[in-house]
Amino acid sequence: MDRASASTVTRLSSYYRALGELGKEGMDTVSSDRLAERAGLTSAQVRKDLSFFGNFGRRGLGYNVAKLRRKLGEILGLTQRWRVALLGAGNLGHALFAYKAFQKQGFVIEAVFDVDPRKVGQKWEGIGIRSIAELQQVAAKTPFDIAIIAVPERAAQAVAEAAVAAGIRGILNFAPVKLTISPQVALRDVDLSIAMESLSYALVKLLP
Amino acid sequence: MDRASASTVTRLSSYYRALGELGKEGMDTVSSDRLAERAGLTSAQVRKDLSFFGNFGRRGLGYNVAKLRRKLGEILGLTQRWRVALLGAGNLGHALFAYKAFQKQGFVIEAVFDVDPRKVGQKWEGIGIRSIAELQQVAAKTPFDIAIIAVPERAAQAVAEAAVAAGIRGILNFAPVKLTISPQVALRDVDLSIAMESLSYALVKLLP
Repeated sequence: MDRASASTVTRLSSYYRALGELGKEGMDTVSSDRLAERAGLTSAQVRKDLSFFGNFGRRGLGYNVAKLRRKLGEILGLTQRWRVALLGAGNLGHALFAYKAFQKQGFVIEAVFDVDPRKVGQKWEGIGIRSIAELQQVAAKTPFDIAIIAVPERAAQAVAEAAVAAGIRGILNFAPVKLTISPQVALRDVDLSIAMESLSYALVKLLP
Repeated sequence: MDRASASTVTRLSSYYRALGELGKEGMDTVSSDRLAERAGLTSAQVRKDLSFFGNFGRRGLGYNVAKLRRKLGEILGLTQRWRVALLGAGNLGHALFAYKAFQKQGFVIEAVFDVDPRKVGQKWEGIGIRSIAELQQVAAKTPFDIAIIAVPERAAQAVAEAAVAAGIRGILNFAPVKLTISPQVALRDVDLSIAMESLSYALVKLLP
């Protein structure tokens, strides 16, 4: 059972990043206060979140930076390699293909699909763009763990269904539309407006 | 003083979206239970978050959907028009330019800047791409509220400084790098890996 909320998992990602920085700065152990400060949260929140997943610290000694980071990496699924299919080779698809942070964390885009015959057959860093009609056939040979959906809104539902039919169990959706798919498939929507709203919230307070 | 945490503001965005859906479905009032369910949170969280910003509901009657949505929109700065400069006209910049959700919420990209002389002078939907060297001069005539940074990592810091020098008070940064700028400027980073990590977290649990 997955009982951690989406925001708890997002905070784990923040701790994971903060621990990476602290490790690079040469710190071996870190208090919940210090970790909280770095992640922009309260120390009570840090202790609560971490205790949900296990017993990582010793009273008075704080957390071992490298060990806690490794542990959080395991929980977040970052210690393994994920085979990713990119669905949509437009501007957003191209930007995501070039986004090196994915690869660094084990999310490897191994194939790119598009519906546009002018795109099919082009090569990006040695990877040929295939027709989306071939997805099932390609996945039958070399299965994908994750599909990134980077197609226009109107095409997203059909593309998501094709991904599920091809046996893909995780979908990262960039199309601004609510997809209806099997609850057996993990779906995460990326809503770029939410970060923008957090900015306008701050600006309303900053501006005269 | 801005005392609401970043995650509280993100949840406000979720409530705002949920209220928009409920309104479209014809609901006039909504309980905190129902709103929580729609936003994927607990009703205690909903009540706590909303009470932080004001007294929006009446005991036993729930919240007025349209009124609460309008109120949250005001708090989030979505009832006004924001003048946005897009810095970076690569694939990501082009994808963000085409992202209609920004415009719908009042974030209007009014100018596009790039450093590449092959791009400068091109037109996107009638907007000419200008040299980033002109940013200050253009902003002096028609000031921008927000800059979207969509340039490669190595260029991001210089571009952010140019934005601040041009009087821009809010920055939405897509470059995977920590920017160092004046605390007078609101800065939000968009880290596309975080949504991916939430997905791999779920997949670790789903997969055998």
